[in-house]
Amino acid sequence: MIEQTLTEAVQRSFDASADERFRQLFVCLVKHLHDFAREVRLTDDEWFTAMDFLERAGKFSTPTRKEFVLLADILGLSTVQDEINQHTDASVTDSAMLGPFYVEGRPTAANGSDISGGVVGTPMFVTGRVVSEHGEPVAGAHVDTWHCDGDGFYDTQQTEKLHDQLAMRALLTTDDNGRFWYRSITPRSYPAPTDGPCGEILRAANRSPMRPQHVHFRIHANGCRPLITQVFRRDDPYIDCDAAFAVKDSLKADFVQQQPGIASDGTAVDEPFITLDWTFTLAANTDR
Amino acid sequence: MIEQTLTEAVQRSFDASADERFRQLFVCLVKHLHDFAREVRLTDDEWFTAMDFLERAGKFSTPTRKEFVLLADILGLSTVQDEINQHTDASVTDSAMLGPFYVEGRPTAANGSDISGGVVGTPMFVTGRVVSEHGEPVAGAHVDTWHCDGDGFYDTQQTEKLHDQLAMRALLTTDDNGRFWYRSITPRSYPAPTDGPCGEILRAANRSPMRPQHVHFRIHANGCRPLITQVFRRDDPYIDCDAAFAVKDSLKADFVQQQPGIASDGTAVDEPFITLDWTFTLAANTDR
Repeated sequence: MIEQTLTEAVQRSFDASADERFRQLFVCLVKHLHDFAREVRLTDDEWFTAMDFLERAGKFSTPTRKEFVLLADILGLSTVQDEINQHTDASVTDSAMLGPFYVEGRPTAANGSDISGGVVGTPMFVTGRVVSEHGEPVAGAHVDTWHCDGDGFYDTQQTEKLHDQLAMRALLTTDDNGRFWYRSITPRSYPAPTDGPCGEILRAANRSPMRPQHVHFRIHANGCRPLITQVFRRDDPYIDCDAAFAVKDSLKADFVQQQPGIASDGTAVDEPFITLDWTFTLAANTDR
Repeated sequence: MIEQTLTEAVQRSFDASADERFRQLFVCLVKHLHDFAREVRLTDDEWFTAMDFLERAGKFSTPTRKEFVLLADILGLSTVQDEINQHTDASVTDSAMLGPFYVEGRPTAANGSDISGGVVGTPMFVTGRVVSEHGEPVAGAHVDTWHCDGDGFYDTQQTEKLHDQLAMRALLTTDDNGRFWYRSITPRSYPAPTDGPCGEILRAANRSPMRPQHVHFRIHANGCRPLITQVFRRDDPYIDCDAAFAVKDSLKADFVQQQPGIASDGTAVDEPFITLDWTFTLAANTDR
């Protein structure tokens, strides 16, 4: 009874906010924070451990290593977030969470470019198409793409080796047919980074940190709702146990193994390579 | 329906933990995190704002400025935590949350010492007694005490002025009669620090950051449950609107205004001063 009075008092302390949405968010946050602590009868030691964990996660974070995003990922919150905001229209490409490796300031690239940044690996040729809900090509769409290397590391995890250069990421623009295409190297399944505070959670839970092989996309186009998604390798061994809970059936794609020969863009490739082709259907932008 | 499946999948990912308590904590945390996001229909912008806020709070924190503790304080979580773990026996002194200004490594002091560290202010003479549930004096109890100065600042907020010296805090030990006593200066009501990320919340909520005048105590003694508490000035203007929700009726004390004269420890004081006397009743230590 006393406990409830306290929660109500804290909630009422947000009544004077000029921003009703802000008030709504904190009233709900306070309810769930208090309920969580009461339901588990949080001990003082656990409370201190939590405070210390959060502080360390903040200090561990860098512009290219977002530990709180990783925390939200491994607790499924990023995918809840994604589900809340995704378009419910089944005809539109499903979204997937951003993940902790997106960075601002990635280089722009022309279609057909090799975006590998010189990192060695099995060649991958990606062809994509951006269309509207009605199947019309979306020209001039901005397509961010990023992925890891053949050892499972993103450029931002290899800053020494790469001399701080970004690699395996670029911003492309679709042509008049809504198409974009690029060459890179093939990513692999990889462990979510466990060298920071989040690693403590995964180890204590005896959880696999592995994420199935995937390529990230973030697409903006005039008149369309932005899309953040990932395309996953259908036959990856970790496809059904993603540490970040991001895999959806609709986002499983064929990463097709090709023999040495001529790639789709006319390049002669003298080693086996991978092709990935995907169509991204964007919802119309409506005020919401 | 899909949403529920996701939450269950995340909860099941903790099933392999060797620590049942750890599993229980995260299963409950996941439920409340997911429910919060769904109930408010958290937007992507809000999600990013939250991630950024948490990272900044971590980076803002120092060993003497615990921004996550402050966050827990202003969201009432610290007091919920306190209520969960406090003794239910009404004959025992109520606890109150630790607050962000407790620091390890405070100086030890003999009873009767002036612990003000040379900070100028209205003299305050504190006399205390530590007793068991049965009213027996607890000798050799370790009594941490700390408070702010007459401008409302703790030593750790005045590192330049104090040349990094700790002041207005000490670790005392009770005598054979369970008594401890010290001289210091009188604290005042003060605003919770608003120069960090938590200040953004208080401003957006149009909330007063003020905390009523109080002195902190943290007491450890063999055979007794540790006690963390605060003693509040009964006639403080902010006594009923503490920004940290820590005030309890049972912890309101008389900060008695005295005319110049002889203090309780025999010291002659040639200016007005304050006396504060309090008895701390500790619960017996039981395995729990």
